[in-house]
Amino acid sequence: MSDTRARRPGPSVRTRVVEHSDDREQPREDRLVTEEPLEIRVRSRGVAPRRAWVTMRTPGHDFELAAGWLVHEGLTTGAGIERVAYCTDADLSADQEFNVVTVDLADGAAVPHRHVASSSGSSACGVCGKDSVSDALTTRSAAPWAGARPDADVVRRLPDALREKQALFDRTGGVHAAGLADADGTLRVVREDVGRHNAVDKVVGARVLAGEPTATACLVLSGRVGFELVQKAAASGIGSIVAVGAPTSLAAGLAEEAGIDLWGFTSPGRTVRYC
Amino acid sequence: MSDTRARRPGPSVRTRVVEHSDDREQPREDRLVTEEPLEIRVRSRGVAPRRAWVTMRTPGHDFELAAGWLVHEGLTTGAGIERVAYCTDADLSADQEFNVVTVDLADGAAVPHRHVASSSGSSACGVCGKDSVSDALTTRSAAPWAGARPDADVVRRLPDALREKQALFDRTGGVHAAGLADADGTLRVVREDVGRHNAVDKVVGARVLAGEPTATACLVLSGRVGFELVQKAAASGIGSIVAVGAPTSLAAGLAEEAGIDLWGFTSPGRTVRYC
Repeated sequence: MSDTRARRPGPSVRTRVVEHSDDREQPREDRLVTEEPLEIRVRSRGVAPRRAWVTMRTPGHDFELAAGWLVHEGLTTGAGIERVAYCTDADLSADQEFNVVTVDLADGAAVPHRHVASSSGSSACGVCGKDSVSDALTTRSAAPWAGARPDADVVRRLPDALREKQALFDRTGGVHAAGLADADGTLRVVREDVGRHNAVDKVVGARVLAGEPTATACLVLSGRVGFELVQKAAASGIGSIVAVGAPTSLAAGLAEEAGIDLWGFTSPGRTVRYC
Repeated sequence: MSDTRARRPGPSVRTRVVEHSDDREQPREDRLVTEEPLEIRVRSRGVAPRRAWVTMRTPGHDFELAAGWLVHEGLTTGAGIERVAYCTDADLSADQEFNVVTVDLADGAAVPHRHVASSSGSSACGVCGKDSVSDALTTRSAAPWAGARPDADVVRRLPDALREKQALFDRTGGVHAAGLADADGTLRVVREDVGRHNAVDKVVGARVLAGEPTATACLVLSGRVGFELVQKAAASGIGSIVAVGAPTSLAAGLAEEAGIDLWGFTSPGRTVRYC
């Protein structure tokens, strides 16, 4: 950010398209949601730098994305994050400058060995099926949400409340949203991203960077509910998940196990409660 | 498959739900799309077994998923695959038996060193930003499609043709589909999966396992078009991508580079051509 070489990528880009309908071809301008790689580098004072992680994301709220991802992966708590910044290494090209984020963890908040091992390769097949599949299924649960939870009437209003804040979706039609809400339906924070997992990391990361607890009454999702989204909700201590789309079998199973209320196919007219 | 201990998971599971609408709560039965981890183990004759890879997928067509994934990752060509089978290692529990697939590659089709390196961890930060972000952007392109391509009229019919084959979506409402089609709109193969990337691996893997070339006139997608889906299409030698949803900036850029026709927001009434 101290350097003017780099052009900071925006959340959408202009493009030219041709729209074909029954009777005509119409050239016009359009907007595409921006998809760019973000590399998250993690280091802890006094400990050798650790492996980075790359995700495809929509630029914007990158520090929140990094913070939320770290907490959801169990690599640190919010209190363990000392500093998040765009990387200023001289070896980065101008294009990469806003696509690499470095997170400094406080002493004692070093990347746990277990996680490093699970993301490491092995030239021998030391990773047995049990360990690998188990790694994918490992869940870190915060204490179950003890506060109030939205009832069905509040739940049915949440997707429309989220939709009103989806400015990037309005422009591009190609982006997911996640929001955190109170039990009475008040939306606290909404973020959009080309990846639904990123959107969840961003809303929780927003609370982490504000020094607030991650535990929240309700996570609202614009799409479907896969297992990994429930993993993140469980790690954050979220009480209810309200989605516009369908949950998967594994998502419903984990929500039940973690004591999370799970609502799918939600619209003003109806919602479906699982487990 | 030689053992009766394991219950082979189906593509959907029954569950009990409560549907809430304006004036009532209605308990009923519902179906959820199955989401389970699949571990793909790759080994080559005379070479030490390599690291496995785990994806969350909907069970069914697992061998196609493994074959398509390997080809899209550039780990082998279709001809290099000798055998795909469920793993019969004694250390696997009954639950895991149908969630681990082993692919045997022919001599000389060993996992390239480059790929192993990119999926390996490092306790030092030897992976610099340039390499990591570049790895994510690396694309393997087959020869550009030289045959006929669907015109706008054919394109606008393809999503409905795909939709007619989405049996699992009909039951669960929570699953993506991909199809391969000829230039005249004839759908050759359709697969559904909770992950859109898996659905693309499966349709291409179906051709790989049938001994057919992966190059095809058209890939049809039920959802949006992210960068990784265009990467797969480029690696397979696909001529056109037709999607119901929006492409991302990076997807449109790569499609243009790879000479792939890209159509988004496609319905019977209209379609939008990018690049």
